[in-house]
Amino acid sequence: MPPTSIPVPSLRRLPSYLRRLHIAVEQGVAYVSSRQLGAAAGVPAAQVRKDLTWVDQEGRPGRGYEARALAAQLELTLGLREQKRAVLVGAGNLGSALAAYPGFGPCGLRIVALFDKDPAVVGKRVAGFVVQPVDSLARVAAEHQVDMGIITVPAEAAQSVAEAMVAAGIGVIWNYAPTTLRLDAGIYVQNQDLAAELALLSYQIVRRRGE
Amino acid sequence: MPPTSIPVPSLRRLPSYLRRLHIAVEQGVAYVSSRQLGAAAGVPAAQVRKDLTWVDQEGRPGRGYEARALAAQLELTLGLREQKRAVLVGAGNLGSALAAYPGFGPCGLRIVALFDKDPAVVGKRVAGFVVQPVDSLARVAAEHQVDMGIITVPAEAAQSVAEAMVAAGIGVIWNYAPTTLRLDAGIYVQNQDLAAELALLSYQIVRRRGE
Repeated sequence: MPPTSIPVPSLRRLPSYLRRLHIAVEQGVAYVSSRQLGAAAGVPAAQVRKDLTWVDQEGRPGRGYEARALAAQLELTLGLREQKRAVLVGAGNLGSALAAYPGFGPCGLRIVALFDKDPAVVGKRVAGFVVQPVDSLARVAAEHQVDMGIITVPAEAAQSVAEAMVAAGIGVIWNYAPTTLRLDAGIYVQNQDLAAELALLSYQIVRRRGE
Repeated sequence: MPPTSIPVPSLRRLPSYLRRLHIAVEQGVAYVSSRQLGAAAGVPAAQVRKDLTWVDQEGRPGRGYEARALAAQLELTLGLREQKRAVLVGAGNLGSALAAYPGFGPCGLRIVALFDKDPAVVGKRVAGFVVQPVDSLARVAAEHQVDMGIITVPAEAAQSVAEAMVAAGIGVIWNYAPTTLRLDAGIYVQNQDLAAELALLSYQIVRRRGE
């Protein structure tokens, strides 16, 4: 692991490079150029080369990067080869969808428990889990050495759920509720703001109308 | 609408600024500084000022940006005040969650119909919609002047669904399936790659273990 942390804009592009490299490996292609990697992330080749200095890989002039080796290095850097455990609070449709999402396992994530505060939902089977009451969060988090909490409750319930996660010793939170959480600076919160993503699509739609 | 399109990195920050401005307006705060806007998006104040030249707003030295006016301008630029219509294909958990998501309405998005190819699901009521067969997509898209297609089917079904959307005249696609779609260059595809988002969290979790 590098001693300094990778700057966020570079970090955000690494999964796009990795996805492109996986395609190359699947297709039996040995080398991928920085131009090809850049196309996958929407940046110029020079930016790719700069980003990849953080993961300590250099391309070969005229050939590019060795796809399998660079993919392995990126997986290592991003921690995708280590097992990580998460709990999910909010067993509604979005929570159920994430609990059953097939793309998380290959990234080393295992969701170990599902919680809800609604007594009508607690005890029911959702995506293969028996939904537990939020009161049990601290016990379960300690038992399973949980790394991350995923929040899929409505906006008005998110702050109290986040505080319960922090109290249970969880330091990384993936927040799907459309609200800004107020937590200690030491807690890493990643907001999955679907409305912000929609804004980018909205811009494209309205531009097309003007054409 | 500006004649040239806003560069993607700047564009991606505008929703963060907008969210921060909405908080200010809610709190009755009249001005927001570029430093405060930058904190919301994780960039320095100078970058904020540069980004906002695209939406034709200048701050006042020493006071910052007028929150209400800049929010209105950003909403206009991003097309959030115009009505946009979408269809959603894939009435599983994720599709149901998105169909019921309360954050889209305020952005001007209306989902007009839900589709699924599974005959066991077609005809059922999901999130207030009667699920329709994918065969009806072209007819419904023309009838409602649909702007966007949302794909929430499994990866292996996504390409054929995307092609059906394009054939129905839809030019903007929001793809939640964890796969790369191969479509004409004129089609705007935005991938919501949850595994890529997870990679950023994975990096944080593994770094914390090393501390």
